[in-house]
Amino acid sequence: MVDKYKFFEPLRVRFAETDLQGHVFFGEYLTYFDEALTQYQHAIGCTYSDLVAAGVDMFYIRSECDYKSRAFFEEVLNVHARVGQIGNSSVTFEFAAFKAHNDELVATGKIIAVTIDPETKKPVRVPDEFRGAVARYENSKE
Amino acid sequence: MVDKYKFFEPLRVRFAETDLQGHVFFGEYLTYFDEALTQYQHAIGCTYSDLVAAGVDMFYIRSECDYKSRAFFEEVLNVHARVGQIGNSSVTFEFAAFKAHNDELVATGKIIAVTIDPETKKPVRVPDEFRGAVARYENSKE
Amino acid sequence: MVDKYKFFEPLRVRFAETDLQGHVFFGEYLTYFDEALTQYQHAIGCTYSDLVAAGVDMFYIRSECDYKSRAFFEEVLNVHARVGQIGNSSVTFEFAAFKAHNDELVATGKIIAVTIDPETKKPVRVPDEFRGAVARYENSKE
Amino acid sequence: MVDKYKFFEPLRVRFAETDLQGHVFFGEYLTYFDEALTQYQHAIGCTYSDLVAAGVDMFYIRSECDYKSRAFFEEVLNVHARVGQIGNSSVTFEFAAFKAHNDELVATGKIIAVTIDPETKKPVRVPDEFRGAVARYENSKE
Repeated sequence: MVDKYKFFEPLRVRFAETDLQGHVFFGEYLTYFDEALTQYQHAIGCTYSDLVAAGVDMFYIRSECDYKSRAFFEEVLNVHARVGQIGNSSVTFEFAAFKAHNDELVATGKIIAVTIDPETKKPVRVPDEFRGAVARYENSKE
Repeated sequence: MVDKYKFFEPLRVRFAETDLQGHVFFGEYLTYFDEALTQYQHAIGCTYSDLVAAGVDMFYIRSECDYKSRAFFEEVLNVHARVGQIGNSSVTFEFAAFKAHNDELVATGKIIAVTIDPETKKPVRVPDEFRGAVARYENSKE
Repeated sequence: MVDKYKFFEPLRVRFAETDLQGHVFFGEYLTYFDEALTQYQHAIGCTYSDLVAAGVDMFYIRSECDYKSRAFFEEVLNVHARVGQIGNSSVTFEFAAFKAHNDELVATGKIIAVTIDPETKKPVRVPDEFRGAVARYENSKE
Repeated sequence: MVDKYKFFEPLRVRFAETDLQGHVFFGEYLTYFDEALTQYQHAIGCTYSDLVAAGVDMFYIRSECDYKSRAFFEEVLNVHARVGQIGNSSVTFEFAAFKAHNDELVATGKIIAVTIDPETKKPVRVPDEFRGAVARYENSKE
């Protein structure tokens, strides 16, 4: 699974993100995925700010997370991100978080976003700049 | 959908739970679901503490959330919860959050939990007390 | 100390708010205070929305919290709130959180807010409506 | 102020950390300070895990934060940390967060911790290893 992802963002588990079971609270993974998504957009060269500047906002319509093992305070998670699919007005981001020190898979998941008109909040076509940026990044060698 | 749920927990949106888009941050819904799950277990008479006292802990193995509309600061969400399915060592909790003032559906979702041995962290059979408590609660009239 | 406060908001500790030490994460108390502040403004009849509608926003310029004892999952905290002082453009809110079941003091604290012009972000005089609402509430009997 | 701190941890503002006012929620700064504190202890060579392994835990008894300006999504904050004072069983950590791109001061603050016996939860003397590690780090040149 790792080799299908070109991008990852390393995130170190904060004390605040743990719960009384001693590991990362299950809800925090959505924040990790979201932060990896943010940085993935930098990697491909079409950031959230670029979209907003181009007159398009993004709302999330679905999230999924499968918890594969537990992560602990101070462990570094390499949160892999990629775009799995682009529809007319939706983008499916996929994630896989591995422990940096031993490659253990901690969680996988998805976020499905729709691109919207900031005024009407209605779906609009995913901009070509974004489509192109994803294609160039994901299809480039190395 | 509302009438299939017997239980709900009202939760008012806190300022801390909003983000720069002006609505509730998408990750917060898992916390809302988790809090409704906690209170659902009180309603059926078999709490998390009861399980732990009986020698069983719970880990979550999957979460899903579908975002149907946006919720805002100070709005009260009635977060409905029920058990959808109980397997050998897994329990599927289902959720639906509606705005209290107008019944608008905001989010639906699932949390799948496994019951585990606190020492070995291995799955164990869902205790009969929990199965019985769910059955009594969900099957009772009114 | 309890009897100097007329208002409190009961808040039950969520699983998400605990950390690996088994108690409430120290940063969560600011969220508790903030939520009590929100509800205090409802009690006095001059809410955050009322201020915004009247053309005034609020920024926080200082917070303090003293941790007196530990709070645990599912415990209900009665978070007391009042206004300690009102300056030209600043309001000092004071807080004290007690366990509902045994009156144990868990935390005390302060939030100092400034009222600002939403456009310029410069301090403006605390509106008379707010001053009056605080005075009426805090000075009324029972 | 910057030049009195030898250590800082760069932290990039996450979407989850913003609120409806468009900037970082005031409570998040305690999480930032706490994360900088964690990494400061790595820098001096006496980590939280080292303390726990040596039979000493830490509880926080006070926090303070002064908000000097607003921080926004994706801005990098260099969160400076140092030990201001060590008492018999208490340690005062001091913090100052600056924007990386323009050195603007965003927040200053303090966390006062007490070292405790993990069993009795009673204060114990701050270990000499910690005192020595702080002294060596803060007094070393460059």
